[in-house]
Amino acid sequence: MAQEASAVVLLSGGLDSAVTLSIVRSQGFRVHALTIDYGQRHSVEVERARRIAEWYGVDHRILSIDLRAIGGSSLTSEMAIPQGGTTRGIPNTYVPARNTIFLSLALAWAEVLGARVVGLGVNAVDYSGYPDCRPEYLAAFERLARLATRAGVEASASPTIVAPLSGLSKAEIIRRGAEMEVPFHLTHSCYDPALDGTVCGVCDACQIRRRGFETAGVPDPTPYIDRVEAR
Amino acid sequence: MAQEASAVVLLSGGLDSAVTLSIVRSQGFRVHALTIDYGQRHSVEVERARRIAEWYGVDHRILSIDLRAIGGSSLTSEMAIPQGGTTRGIPNTYVPARNTIFLSLALAWAEVLGARVVGLGVNAVDYSGYPDCRPEYLAAFERLARLATRAGVEASASPTIVAPLSGLSKAEIIRRGAEMEVPFHLTHSCYDPALDGTVCGVCDACQIRRRGFETAGVPDPTPYIDRVEAR
Repeated sequence: MAQEASAVVLLSGGLDSAVTLSIVRSQGFRVHALTIDYGQRHSVEVERARRIAEWYGVDHRILSIDLRAIGGSSLTSEMAIPQGGTTRGIPNTYVPARNTIFLSLALAWAEVLGARVVGLGVNAVDYSGYPDCRPEYLAAFERLARLATRAGVEASASPTIVAPLSGLSKAEIIRRGAEMEVPFHLTHSCYDPALDGTVCGVCDACQIRRRGFETAGVPDPTPYIDRVEAR
Repeated sequence: MAQEASAVVLLSGGLDSAVTLSIVRSQGFRVHALTIDYGQRHSVEVERARRIAEWYGVDHRILSIDLRAIGGSSLTSEMAIPQGGTTRGIPNTYVPARNTIFLSLALAWAEVLGARVVGLGVNAVDYSGYPDCRPEYLAAFERLARLATRAGVEASASPTIVAPLSGLSKAEIIRRGAEMEVPFHLTHSCYDPALDGTVCGVCDACQIRRRGFETAGVPDPTPYIDRVEAR
């Protein structure tokens, strides 16, 4: 692989996308990080994305699109956030077509940059619930990209979609990130944080994160609000 | 078809999408029009979209996303607009991955609404140049939608992508629109309009439009700035 090939990585400010950025960067790509500010309830993650990109010294753009105009998710409207990991089927934190929207925007930027790769941090835990995290979905998007873009038409060099965490559990992702010294303290997972930045500790995202650190045996730097009475 | 089924139609403010809206509406769908304000040079079309939606009395949302942050097109950056229909290959008015972005947003809203159809106004003239106007592209997007959405997973009812103008020339679209009394005077095509709303008459979009009206034998209500010295 050419040492100077470019990659666009979708960087949410969460743990998974930070590890993804680190992996893609370690493969020798010049990383361009893209964050979508979509009106999410946990918009603190956009600021975290900025700090993570700064930590790695990579090019970073933030695109704003207010998906609250569309609604349909507890992350962008007034529905209650699910707690306790008891959700069956697709949870209400699913944002309609979110990964398709995000990948489209990453594809656009990749086309402008001539990037060979688009990276995103979907994983095994996510795709058990969200339809647009499944490997067959990502393969379909890559096929679409070949038909959608100038590169696909003129030079058969549309970007490859890579999801290096796809087969990993949260604990495995955290172990991998710890080996690469990913700045976990900058990452944010909670769907329902307080205004002061403390995190609830009980939403699905918090529970998956804290169990992941426990299972991985890696110290968890997260300031859960319920730390004292934690399980 | 159920009389009350919903459709999301991408409405740019141009002629093609107005005719598309009219066709989908005439098929009995309850139309929800979606306009994307993407930082385009010809942003007057967003206002025209608003007026067209109002004319038809349909639900209308405008989503803003500033693709100038990405660039790569003469419509969103300082490149020169091509004139005279002499463009070879893909013209620089091509906006990277634009239809993928727009269809993703329409898909998201369709999923929230439970809409059965997503309509867009791509046509035979467009797909001779833009990769993401080709029928095989649209088919690939429809396949992606089945994998991407809650509806696709839970009820195998993800929306159908319809492009009723796909096989038509500009003149045929205009004839069709004239039969349905589409408000052509509200539609905008010019890539490079003056601030007062007069249109250049010479960019590719203007030339295709004016030749279309001439060929169709339909009166052209467009205030071309060069009307007096026109060919």
